[in-house]
Amino acid sequence: MTESPSSLSKSVLNPTLYRPDFPILGRQTNSGAPLVFLDNGASTQRPHAVIDAMSECYSKYYANVHRGIHTLSEESTDRYEQARRTVARFLNAASEVEVLFTAGTTAAINTVARTWGDQNVGPDDYILLTMMEHHANIVPWHQLSERTGCKVLFAKLNSEGQVDQEHLDSLWQQYGQQIKMFAFTAVSNVLGTITPVAAWVQQAQQHGAATLVDAAQAAPHMAIDVRQWDADFVIFSGHKLCGPTGIGVLYGRESILDAMPPFLGGGAMINTVTTEGFTTAALPDKFEAGTPPIVEAIGLEAAIDYISAVGLEAIHDHEQVLTRRAHEGLAGIEGLTILGPQDPALKGGIVSFVFPHIHAHDIAQWLDTRGIAVRAGHHCAMPLHKDLGISASSRASFYLYNTVEEVDSFVQAVSEVTQKFAPTGRKRRRRK
Amino acid sequence: MTESPSSLSKSVLNPTLYRPDFPILGRQTNSGAPLVFLDNGASTQRPHAVIDAMSECYSKYYANVHRGIHTLSEESTDRYEQARRTVARFLNAASEVEVLFTAGTTAAINTVARTWGDQNVGPDDYILLTMMEHHANIVPWHQLSERTGCKVLFAKLNSEGQVDQEHLDSLWQQYGQQIKMFAFTAVSNVLGTITPVAAWVQQAQQHGAATLVDAAQAAPHMAIDVRQWDADFVIFSGHKLCGPTGIGVLYGRESILDAMPPFLGGGAMINTVTTEGFTTAALPDKFEAGTPPIVEAIGLEAAIDYISAVGLEAIHDHEQVLTRRAHEGLAGIEGLTILGPQDPALKGGIVSFVFPHIHAHDIAQWLDTRGIAVRAGHHCAMPLHKDLGISASSRASFYLYNTVEEVDSFVQAVSEVTQKFAPTGRKRRRRK
Repeated sequence: MTESPSSLSKSVLNPTLYRPDFPILGRQTNSGAPLVFLDNGASTQRPHAVIDAMSECYSKYYANVHRGIHTLSEESTDRYEQARRTVARFLNAASEVEVLFTAGTTAAINTVARTWGDQNVGPDDYILLTMMEHHANIVPWHQLSERTGCKVLFAKLNSEGQVDQEHLDSLWQQYGQQIKMFAFTAVSNVLGTITPVAAWVQQAQQHGAATLVDAAQAAPHMAIDVRQWDADFVIFSGHKLCGPTGIGVLYGRESILDAMPPFLGGGAMINTVTTEGFTTAALPDKFEAGTPPIVEAIGLEAAIDYISAVGLEAIHDHEQVLTRRAHEGLAGIEGLTILGPQDPALKGGIVSFVFPHIHAHDIAQWLDTRGIAVRAGHHCAMPLHKDLGISASSRASFYLYNTVEEVDSFVQAVSEVTQKFAPTGRKRRRRK
Repeated sequence: MTESPSSLSKSVLNPTLYRPDFPILGRQTNSGAPLVFLDNGASTQRPHAVIDAMSECYSKYYANVHRGIHTLSEESTDRYEQARRTVARFLNAASEVEVLFTAGTTAAINTVARTWGDQNVGPDDYILLTMMEHHANIVPWHQLSERTGCKVLFAKLNSEGQVDQEHLDSLWQQYGQQIKMFAFTAVSNVLGTITPVAAWVQQAQQHGAATLVDAAQAAPHMAIDVRQWDADFVIFSGHKLCGPTGIGVLYGRESILDAMPPFLGGGAMINTVTTEGFTTAALPDKFEAGTPPIVEAIGLEAAIDYISAVGLEAIHDHEQVLTRRAHEGLAGIEGLTILGPQDPALKGGIVSFVFPHIHAHDIAQWLDTRGIAVRAGHHCAMPLHKDLGISASSRASFYLYNTVEEVDSFVQAVSEVTQKFAPTGRKRRRRK
């Protein structure tokens, strides 16, 4: 494959500068091939800075946070609250009390559905989603429907893998103020589609609806400004952003969080407890019952510091280069269809594809023999796959440490799949 | 202080063998004094084995678990599920599917209250607790009461800091089968009281009630056998057991977990999702929505391996020695009252105490200047403190790495408190 200087020259980020920071990238897979990790949409890898920050906490200053009147507890509490301020700056939140640490994106969306939802949604109301949501942004609303009798609406997609704005407009027109919440992804985890968050929030506000943005696939890959978006809730995970497992962030507008009932009950979230009942603490403690993910918050801060130093714009631009390269390469493979927008400029660094006669699992298994890690299946987006008329797809997803050469290896290996799994009697052909 | 060979000789565990495993134990506090960490009831410290297991996962084989068809995902999934089997063995669970990873003890108790509780409890029903429960085992039941109209009962304590069995019997007699759940701690986090778990479970079963055991202060300190206890739910945290923050364990009897609705909705916990609804996955996935605390589970396994190698019986015996030593030493300090059982044999390694005229916070602050970390406050047990007629207490809590010499330093420093904070004009006296 020849290089495409036009796409390469756009990259303002040199991934080879960062790869040595990620110890796992030096390993081989079972086949003995060097690892090409293109499963970043499921979870990213960590730089030494993150691993070391957590080890240092455990080794040098760890104790449980809050309420402790001794040196270690004060140090841990300071660092934990410093992590909260770092996340607030990262999101451009108006106040650090708008940043709540949760167990992850899923826990955060469930928190909103169980608190804001149970408080504000009734049997005549609607929750509006899009057809390209992750199960984490579908099932909690189905569960809310089970509890309250509300209905869940899905905005349809157009043939370009974007939400059909006309259909969306018609839903607002038809259901108006009965729609209490518009919950949608900022970047589709399958199609890569980037959605017009600020415009959609504005549209929802015109109908008096609340908004929740699933930023799990956005926060790691592009600069986010929650005040510019103006959504009521913005949610993301640590582990998709070079950070630890076991932690996510629930950003909520302070006035809304204040008005919401608490979710999990226990220590730290209370003001008083008696045998008769309890009163709740102020934000952010109100939503952080029990011992929080202390060391995970410190690891998350290190991750945010790391990717911020690389630069979120540079990361996005770099992923654009990789995505364009992948699109150009895959376009030459007979029978392969790329899902979602065909224009990489409309996408995050996600490339999902299907063949009519080769199962996604076979592709992933074959790629693994070449050292290449991609994901195959429904990617926790069954309604989307059903809507597309498929049951599974293969997905390559990029991050700051991926190189153009890795994308080329991936394209080459996918092209070999068509030969390996060619129908019997069919003439083998090499890709161009 | 002279040594007491009678108590020392009982220790079958030599903590000095293990202290080098815990890097943080070598540090000093702000005062420059060497750290004496006696705040293990709030959270323990970690050995290299745990810190290294997590770093190794991030550095060598991390990927998201389940559904991944590539080398790293398979390795991570194998290790994550191996951790589940290790926890199952640790608890002597009948099956590994009875072991669910949660964000912590608080999340686990809330899971039971929100699923089993919402399903099985109505306005005429009662939840039975004891007066020495942690807020994590009170507030979720108050919240269940808010949702369902059920009432919460508290079994009273006797003057020895144990549950008054006569009062408990009278509650069972009075409310009988209206009590749907008896949720109680295996070891009080304030009094140290060890409760008769198996007998109480049997009593509950005679009335058809379910049982939940808060083992947060038990699992790290004594051998647990969930089949011998026969409780329906047993819960503990990683971070109180030399393990990571961000993870806890919810053990549940398989037949009950099978009958319960799911809690958090999202990826992994489903079988199918459509625009109309969803069906749930089998155990244990059903209760593990989203990306689980993967690396935390691997760290927890390393912690369980570590404390199992030390020996849970040896840890318990060692803590008995330390607790007896602390009781003997504190008994000589004028004005000091030890809360709970006066006989250390009835307790876990927890010693809480009060002075009539010195605030717990002042004590903790003074001890910190001597390098000694204890906790002061209500220890997330306000109803207990109110019942005892106090607002706060100071608590020293021990673990396998604490030494008799540390206990002696602690006693010595507490005795100095009486001089430092002696009422004006009161004759200073040295403790015997």
